[in-house]
Amino acid sequence: MRAHDVIVAKRDGGRLTDEQIDWFISTYAEGSQIADEQAAALVMAIFLNGMDDEEVARWTGAMIDSGDRLDLSSVDRPTVDKHSTGGVGDKISLIVVPLLAACGAAVPQLSGRGLGHTGGTLDKMEAIQGWRPEMSLDQMRNQLNTVGAVIAGASAALAPADRKLYALRDVTGTVESIPLIASSIMSKKIAEGTRGLTLDVKVGAGAFMGDLASADALARTMVRLGQAHGVATSALVTRMDHVLGHAVGNGLEVAEAMDVLAGGGPSDVVELSLALADDMVRLAGLDAVPADVLASGAAMETFEAMVAAQGGDLSAGLATAEFRREIRAQRSGVVQGVDARRVGVAAWHLGAGRARKEDDVSATAGIVCRVRPGDEVQAGQPVLELHADDEQRFARAEAELAGVDLIGAVRIDDEAYVAPPIVIEAISEP
Amino acid sequence: MRAHDVIVAKRDGGRLTDEQIDWFISTYAEGSQIADEQAAALVMAIFLNGMDDEEVARWTGAMIDSGDRLDLSSVDRPTVDKHSTGGVGDKISLIVVPLLAACGAAVPQLSGRGLGHTGGTLDKMEAIQGWRPEMSLDQMRNQLNTVGAVIAGASAALAPADRKLYALRDVTGTVESIPLIASSIMSKKIAEGTRGLTLDVKVGAGAFMGDLASADALARTMVRLGQAHGVATSALVTRMDHVLGHAVGNGLEVAEAMDVLAGGGPSDVVELSLALADDMVRLAGLDAVPADVLASGAAMETFEAMVAAQGGDLSAGLATAEFRREIRAQRSGVVQGVDARRVGVAAWHLGAGRARKEDDVSATAGIVCRVRPGDEVQAGQPVLELHADDEQRFARAEAELAGVDLIGAVRIDDEAYVAPPIVIEAISEP
Repeated sequence: MRAHDVIVAKRDGGRLTDEQIDWFISTYAEGSQIADEQAAALVMAIFLNGMDDEEVARWTGAMIDSGDRLDLSSVDRPTVDKHSTGGVGDKISLIVVPLLAACGAAVPQLSGRGLGHTGGTLDKMEAIQGWRPEMSLDQMRNQLNTVGAVIAGASAALAPADRKLYALRDVTGTVESIPLIASSIMSKKIAEGTRGLTLDVKVGAGAFMGDLASADALARTMVRLGQAHGVATSALVTRMDHVLGHAVGNGLEVAEAMDVLAGGGPSDVVELSLALADDMVRLAGLDAVPADVLASGAAMETFEAMVAAQGGDLSAGLATAEFRREIRAQRSGVVQGVDARRVGVAAWHLGAGRARKEDDVSATAGIVCRVRPGDEVQAGQPVLELHADDEQRFARAEAELAGVDLIGAVRIDDEAYVAPPIVIEAISEP
Repeated sequence: MRAHDVIVAKRDGGRLTDEQIDWFISTYAEGSQIADEQAAALVMAIFLNGMDDEEVARWTGAMIDSGDRLDLSSVDRPTVDKHSTGGVGDKISLIVVPLLAACGAAVPQLSGRGLGHTGGTLDKMEAIQGWRPEMSLDQMRNQLNTVGAVIAGASAALAPADRKLYALRDVTGTVESIPLIASSIMSKKIAEGTRGLTLDVKVGAGAFMGDLASADALARTMVRLGQAHGVATSALVTRMDHVLGHAVGNGLEVAEAMDVLAGGGPSDVVELSLALADDMVRLAGLDAVPADVLASGAAMETFEAMVAAQGGDLSAGLATAEFRREIRAQRSGVVQGVDARRVGVAAWHLGAGRARKEDDVSATAGIVCRVRPGDEVQAGQPVLELHADDEQRFARAEAELAGVDLIGAVRIDDEAYVAPPIVIEAISEP
């Protein structure tokens, strides 16, 4: 088989055969026989000409088969996990992973670091003093049987073809393709060994998917892929126009997640956490009621046990940033929106995110949104609080937030605001 | 500027700006700041989403500007050249280059080696004992003033961006794109310094362009590009369904070209040579009549002088292959076609062409078509003569020629055959 012929088949709008997909993915993952430029040409052809359902399923299977699929059969609780396509202020995993464990499930969440303006769960957890994402498979199985909750770094042995392809897509403008996104996410999640999976597919100005039709298509593609590979999979399509909760930034989000685990926290974060947890409990076949378990304090206990099992120390509290600045309302009125994308980009400029994989992130930098949509504000009242370890970082963040008008990222006018429900649709059949 | 943004612009169907094109081409030609996988993604996006006339003109200009443009102002004859998009048995340059010189022009033909089943002019000339394609610019100018004809290897300093991009396109399935073909050919020809250029754009089963609409579009694009860069350019769209003449293979084609220069040779080769030469004489502003000059023997004298000036020795004749096989007609009748593609591929299997740039070619291997369309044949009469240096090469060539039926590459039936004119259209305005 020749790479050239596989590229030409897709370039000309044809289907790739099972043999072509298996050969291309396994050969590319292994080494040097297929050049990066050939993989880039194929991926751009897929971006522009698409793949049908059978091609995407095979592509995903080939990526799983390029590495290990974890064997969690020795875990005696039902396994279930969640995955989010990425939002600004999305600290939901830090709440839902221990909450589901407290409900009786085992949650084997293998996660990644963030790139761009939406943070990664590992970056957030690493804001906790001493916490480590590294773990052997035996340690993971043991922690799933005792604590029930694991958040760890995905091993290089899981879907290595995806790792190599994702790095290629990142520099070749081929990330935003539904077949490629779906197969990338699902190959890693299926390889992780979970039996149930709830997907949080975000849509809106602050999300990867800007429109509902694309989000719906991505959600259905992933549900179909999960079910085709024996994982009970469902998806919630959820709104990501405004910042989720108040906090954006690694340590700031851990603190807000702990507020929710303690029974408080912003209502939208609580609403989304429980919606996802309800779905995961259903997939795991458990009888627990997540709202009750959260209220009991059991989820907080599980969070603390999970942190401690991975070397984390919460006794000293979380570090805070050395410098703060406030941005004040330019007028009085009702907050209509807190622009997720612009706040995310500003937090990234402050140090909360990374531009390249090898960059460090700050544990303390970020933004606290003092107001949320629907709040009444007076002119001059602080609406955003910027945190940074380095004063020189404020200028670019402030420019991003102010933008071209006086109101900037926090939109204020005189109309009443009615919050729409955060979950737009639930998809359990592909 | 970032490569990623340029890729995304074209991926999404937009125009590339002049600045984006200049930056991408010059940066990619220079070195390592743009990775091959990024160039591959851009080129596939161009393949699928196209470029408009202004983009192609800028792209071509940027490729010329990546290297030198030869200064032939010290040549005292009018300069004119021809280029063919590649056909099977296409030895026309070997005839037309000396013929135009004998008409009073200077022909600075910088040529390449063949890849795949259509041979390169340098490969053919190298079948002549001692002939060398290497030449300095001063040597070239001197030979143009004395002999009037040069066939030489294109220096790496001409359009280096095209050299790098062509190698990339070759392995990424992005060769057959009109904007990319046109800019590749024209950047090299414009950089060569000629003031006039006649293009032979081939169409048909044995050509790169299978249909007339594509060939016409390619021809018009190249005429426009030449004129935009100050080169008087026209194009003939010509038929390439059957082998051109009798001979396919490096030394075999030199011998046939010399038959034409001596006043004989196959009628289709003579017809096409004179059609191209007439157009080149017109572009060069000369009064000579190519048919008369050919008949006078002056073109042969110029060919011999050109060969001698570059170290070639014709006194011992051309080498011939050690082994020959014949393929015979399976039935009696009239020859309807000699399949150019299949004969070209078979000659390639015999050793006349190369699969990879670094392969050697045989000077003697190839195929002599003993019959041409319109000839009457008897069953059992030899129709194809295969030449090779290595007997093991016959099996694959014979398989290619026989194919799935008994008649194979030479189609014979009982109908009369009327040869269509070889030139389909002449294009002198874009």
